Amino acid sequence: MDFSLSDELTDLKARVEAFVRDELIPRERDPRQGPHGPSDELRRELNQRALAAGLFAPHMPREWGGLGLDHRGKAVVFEAAGYSLLGPLALNIAAPDEGNMHLMEQVADERQKHRWLGPLSRGETRSCFAMTEPRPGSGSDPGMLATTYRKVDGGYRINGEKWLITGAQGASFTIIMARDVNSPEGKPRATMFLADMDTAGISVDRTLDTLDQSFPGGHCEVSFTDVFVPDEDVLGAEGEGFRYAQVRLAPARLTHCMRWLGAARRAHDIAVDYASRRHAFGKPLIEHEGTGFQLADNEMDIHTSRLVIAHTAWVLDQGHKGRHESSVAKVICSEAIWRVVDRSMQVLGGFGTTGDTVVERIFRDVRPFRIYDGPSEVHRWSIANRLARGQQK
Amino acid sequence: MDFSLSDELTDLKARVEAFVRDELIPRERDPRQGPHGPSDELRRELNQRALAAGLFAPHMPREWGGLGLDHRGKAVVFEAAGYSLLGPLALNIAAPDEGNMHLMEQVADERQKHRWLGPLSRGETRSCFAMTEPRPGSGSDPGMLATTYRKVDGGYRINGEKWLITGAQGASFTIIMARDVNSPEGKPRATMFLADMDTAGISVDRTLDTLDQSFPGGHCEVSFTDVFVPDEDVLGAEGEGFRYAQVRLAPARLTHCMRWLGAARRAHDIAVDYASRRHAFGKPLIEHEGTGFQLADNEMDIHTSRLVIAHTAWVLDQGHKGRHESSVAKVICSEAIWRVVDRSMQVLGGFGTTGDTVVERIFRDVRPFRIYDGPSEVHRWSIANRLARGQQK
Amino acid sequence: MDFSLSDELTDLKARVEAFVRDELIPRERDPRQGPHGPSDELRRELNQRALAAGLFAPHMPREWGGLGLDHRGKAVVFEAAGYSLLGPLALNIAAPDEGNMHLMEQVADERQKHRWLGPLSRGETRSCFAMTEPRPGSGSDPGMLATTYRKVDGGYRINGEKWLITGAQGASFTIIMARDVNSPEGKPRATMFLADMDTAGISVDRTLDTLDQSFPGGHCEVSFTDVFVPDEDVLGAEGEGFRYAQVRLAPARLTHCMRWLGAARRAHDIAVDYASRRHAFGKPLIEHEGTGFQLADNEMDIHTSRLVIAHTAWVLDQGHKGRHESSVAKVICSEAIWRVVDRSMQVLGGFGTTGDTVVERIFRDVRPFRIYDGPSEVHRWSIANRLARGQQK
Amino acid sequence: MDFSLSDELTDLKARVEAFVRDELIPRERDPRQGPHGPSDELRRELNQRALAAGLFAPHMPREWGGLGLDHRGKAVVFEAAGYSLLGPLALNIAAPDEGNMHLMEQVADERQKHRWLGPLSRGETRSCFAMTEPRPGSGSDPGMLATTYRKVDGGYRINGEKWLITGAQGASFTIIMARDVNSPEGKPRATMFLADMDTAGISVDRTLDTLDQSFPGGHCEVSFTDVFVPDEDVLGAEGEGFRYAQVRLAPARLTHCMRWLGAARRAHDIAVDYASRRHAFGKPLIEHEGTGFQLADNEMDIHTSRLVIAHTAWVLDQGHKGRHESSVAKVICSEAIWRVVDRSMQVLGGFGTTGDTVVERIFRDVRPFRIYDGPSEVHRWSIANRLARGQQK
Repeated sequence: MDFSLSDELTDLKARVEAFVRDELIPRERDPRQGPHGPSDELRRELNQRALAAGLFAPHMPREWGGLGLDHRGKAVVFEAAGYSLLGPLALNIAAPDEGNMHLMEQVADERQKHRWLGPLSRGETRSCFAMTEPRPGSGSDPGMLATTYRKVDGGYRINGEKWLITGAQGASFTIIMARDVNSPEGKPRATMFLADMDTAGISVDRTLDTLDQSFPGGHCEVSFTDVFVPDEDVLGAEGEGFRYAQVRLAPARLTHCMRWLGAARRAHDIAVDYASRRHAFGKPLIEHEGTGFQLADNEMDIHTSRLVIAHTAWVLDQGHKGRHESSVAKVICSEAIWRVVDRSMQVLGGFGTTGDTVVERIFRDVRPFRIYDGPSEVHRWSIANRLARGQQK
Repeated sequence: MDFSLSDELTDLKARVEAFVRDELIPRERDPRQGPHGPSDELRRELNQRALAAGLFAPHMPREWGGLGLDHRGKAVVFEAAGYSLLGPLALNIAAPDEGNMHLMEQVADERQKHRWLGPLSRGETRSCFAMTEPRPGSGSDPGMLATTYRKVDGGYRINGEKWLITGAQGASFTIIMARDVNSPEGKPRATMFLADMDTAGISVDRTLDTLDQSFPGGHCEVSFTDVFVPDEDVLGAEGEGFRYAQVRLAPARLTHCMRWLGAARRAHDIAVDYASRRHAFGKPLIEHEGTGFQLADNEMDIHTSRLVIAHTAWVLDQGHKGRHESSVAKVICSEAIWRVVDRSMQVLGGFGTTGDTVVERIFRDVRPFRIYDGPSEVHRWSIANRLARGQQK
Repeated sequence: MDFSLSDELTDLKARVEAFVRDELIPRERDPRQGPHGPSDELRRELNQRALAAGLFAPHMPREWGGLGLDHRGKAVVFEAAGYSLLGPLALNIAAPDEGNMHLMEQVADERQKHRWLGPLSRGETRSCFAMTEPRPGSGSDPGMLATTYRKVDGGYRINGEKWLITGAQGASFTIIMARDVNSPEGKPRATMFLADMDTAGISVDRTLDTLDQSFPGGHCEVSFTDVFVPDEDVLGAEGEGFRYAQVRLAPARLTHCMRWLGAARRAHDIAVDYASRRHAFGKPLIEHEGTGFQLADNEMDIHTSRLVIAHTAWVLDQGHKGRHESSVAKVICSEAIWRVVDRSMQVLGGFGTTGDTVVERIFRDVRPFRIYDGPSEVHRWSIANRLARGQQK
Repeated sequence: MDFSLSDELTDLKARVEAFVRDELIPRERDPRQGPHGPSDELRRELNQRALAAGLFAPHMPREWGGLGLDHRGKAVVFEAAGYSLLGPLALNIAAPDEGNMHLMEQVADERQKHRWLGPLSRGETRSCFAMTEPRPGSGSDPGMLATTYRKVDGGYRINGEKWLITGAQGASFTIIMARDVNSPEGKPRATMFLADMDTAGISVDRTLDTLDQSFPGGHCEVSFTDVFVPDEDVLGAEGEGFRYAQVRLAPARLTHCMRWLGAARRAHDIAVDYASRRHAFGKPLIEHEGTGFQLADNEMDIHTSRLVIAHTAWVLDQGHKGRHESSVAKVICSEAIWRVVDRSMQVLGGFGTTGDTVVERIFRDVRPFRIYDGPSEVHRWSIANRLARGQQK
């Protein structure tokens, strides 16, 4: 067991931290941001800065212009980037694009990579991932997948409704999860498809108002009406949708943990700073145990989250799928991070509920993380199931 | 001990519930609402409807056009009104006006009541309460009060800065808390003043962006520059500011508990309804214990909050000041209500983080309640102090 | 709503408090106590003292020598008695006798009352309640009831195994819960029987070592081998066992809450006293917020528990069955009381883990309360079920 | 970052697990155990078995007959040993001996090592560590140290009272922490002394009744009356007592975490096994989410504890003092382990409160760990202090 970072990674971390401090934090109040994240113009500017700093797309292999980080390397860099809500976008490691890149890199063929992955990894496009469905379709239960495909001459026809599709508005292309219309009820056979968003029959019907505000394009309702996808745009192999979902989901959960841990640390640092300077009842807030203990608990939640992330990253780096470990990490980190942010707001008092610090934004943006990519309840159920089947370690 | 409601109160409760259901909930998406609450026009319309329903200003004595409810009566009616975020405003029982009315009713003289309380209680005006100050002034610690007054010919001159002054933008008048400029450091002598907001030297400098959105006029920075207040506009007696603050605060904390309990119940009902209809893994969510237990915990938190409110209201109705009881109620209710709303959002999943239900609004609006009117930490400290002094029951 | 106590009840409470303080607490280290509670000799002495003080069997109707307390009266008196672990035994209001008395009073016939209830209510005998069974019998799930009865000439023959039967060792008689051997699997038809413990075929096979130590007779394994019970010793009517179980259980849960609340208050008072006198880092522990906040939380947990108990008692006093309310009260109180005792131990530090205060005993004795009479999980499940069926209020 | 174990350590772990399973668990009900742990005879027998298995004193350097484990190696082996409450004793890695060995190895001179460390490390003797004092002496606050020493001809005279001195009854020698009688109030100068327990003036006055039962010799009151310690039996240097206390405490806290983590895992495994076999309401308990989620939380608490321990061990292995890290680990692990054990008992229901499984013993034995070696409150305060001083990482 060894918890040290390589010199190279230590250096990279320092460079990301400097970039966040010097380039991003001063731009956090750039007016080109709205309820659905930064504008495309702002995003591209930030990308240019990251490129200039040699920090762009660090998760991509070097042949795709990245730094070829392994999962442990991502753990360090993504947390550092997450310290600003602009960080993941600037480095092109934000959801859902980052997860889509990872998935395509694993299962797309060369033509597909050239057509979709290349521009995406260079920040020329955005993408979305169309899996979640409104009631009575598939939320947490993949067996309820309701969007269908049927084989037609030269390709497939897709019909269905999706929602909470992050970034759909403004995306260039989407990955669509659909079920074989002929597969049995409750036991769907699923396939993933690649399609440009301007394909006939794809419609972004609504961008939802949401608690969180940092995702470009927001969270959308998207409908698919007799959408034709040619055979060659099946992502990977037909019928392998659920397997690919796992390929995407385990690492994607973990990169969420990494990024949000950075945001939680930001909130915590702001709270520590404030509590050290704001006085009440004769001494700084931080010297009141009622405040100091909350900050101590923050320290501990941040510490355990970081360790759990590092461990899961190591498991993935060993070539394991890490389904159990990523479930565990998702529950632990999403709940610990939430506590950190909530306590930071509490320590800040009324100040914390205003837009005068970024804590209020983080508070709103991070709450959904206890829900998306599997709510805590679904992961606890999975963990318990594994225990019941004697598969626990 | 008797937990029954009088027939009269039971009937009134039913009428408020019907009003909320039939008149308010259908209007919750009225576009005349922004980040700082409903417009004045909308507020007045809602007031007219409440008046027509015989439900307007129920907390006011009958001679002031109200229903003369005691604290226990308020507990029932305010909770029912809080079931819609529009309810308190419609009935003219929203903060800070409701607390100001209570305070003025107790300590203002007849002239002051005629001039300020009358129009306020009739919904013709709004008011604000200027006590909280930015660093290094008085937040939770009243001893740090920094806004000063000094005696001048015929009145007083007031100087200082306030912030998080709810409703200042658009208020007709304010109650100002200030310290005698000659009182010793750390032991200020405080006085309350009444002043119209258009008095020379009063300036609303900024309306803060805040997590919550339901208060008309938002939360503002207000500065007082050589503001002249004539002798007759001292509220009550000079030098009694801290005593009056207690007259206002104990009941005001409790009415917050009442209103927010209604909102929490609303979130819970929406979650129960959704969990009963949304299926996953072969049955409705509510039949999954991971969901059902959260809703059961909601039930219990709502139940204890209601009991604690009722008890404190009874203490106040006996003529006691209820400082201890209202501190206890504030901590218990603000934390229980928060848990209820947070769990409701969790049960709703992604749906809950969108504006498609009111839960997302309640989530944002209720979070600051763990902070304002004394954060949990200050109240726990007071309770512990009382224990240390052997004053606990 | 009225939270006042009658003068009579206030006076009675004071008398119980004085009795506990003057007669019981000084005797808490009487050596006639072992791992399974006080000896019979000690119990009878304490009963005599309670009788002399006019406080014996206060829950019984006046015609049975009691004080005829209603449930709200019990709430006050039982809490006061619970302040010493000897209190419930001294007043003859300890489990399981108290619950058995309540049940018999409701459903036994005159002959049965004369034969069994009379001596029990006078403290001449002890009793037990034989319902819980070892795996694979009935624990929390009554449908798994495995002990059977079959009709024979003039009565019934009972066979089966019970365990965790509190007080069986030394009991004079038992109430036996058994299923009609002919009733269908999973849908048992149950009946309660009265039987002297020296009936042929009844055997106390083992007294279990348990965490708790205050119940006379301990918790036992009891077997029933072809036990004959004559027709006239059926308790109430044949086939009504489950209905009677509810008659017994709802109030019995609540009286547990009452008694243990007293014990929790004792632990809290000891902790407050210690924290006020023990110094560290320059001041009494209680002035450290890390300690003071725990004690404040104790205050709040005690307060809510008392309110919830009072409310449920009021519901029962209105003639309602209170199944929902007693489930809610059981979960809230057993968990709140546990927190109080655990925090009290924490505040006491190493001292609290020793037998030098009674807190260590209370800690051990109260932990099982989160389990018996329905573990928290079963009650949460019931509460959620009621919500799912739309029966919540 | 690397979470893998060396082959050697993996093999050693497996051997300890086999030893615990085959040699210790079958002997857990050996009657030679009482309220203050196993008898000396039993201890020696177990030591012989460990010796035969090549697992004795694995923490000691090879020249002292051990396996020369570093802290990370201890993390693995001590957890495996802790799986049985007999494990630490069998391997001679139980508190307080293990911590005393570590301390002496670091600061004792050769003569002292030969005289005291040798026999102790071979299991021929037991020892104790006399630091904690009753009120008004030093509990958590070292500044309140009340036991004094004064220089006399050829040595020192020690006077004072200690309590909760683990293992004093039956110990061959003790390390005594005392203050220079001439050092200023609140700023004591402290020294550690070595002394045989049969030295004139040392008296074990009482063995306390305690919640926990696994420490041989129990927790005792020890008084020192004019005890003479010659100059050469000062441990290390005069005046360095507080520094040495840190040398002992940081690793000692961590080895507690390791051992108790093993015990928690044992409780969890018993609960998982039971919940998989006990049915209620139509399926195994573990398939009820109310139970399964508790077991999932256990998994997560065990996982984070193990990671935090490993990380702190790594910090110590780098030669750092690890004061911050060991404080953090102590709070996280003691609280997480407690939750695991408490949940395990809850899952086991009534069964768990009996002596029929070892969970009841673990429950009692582990509770004090949230208190000794610094209660959670003191460590949170230290962590907050470090934050306040800007020393956090």
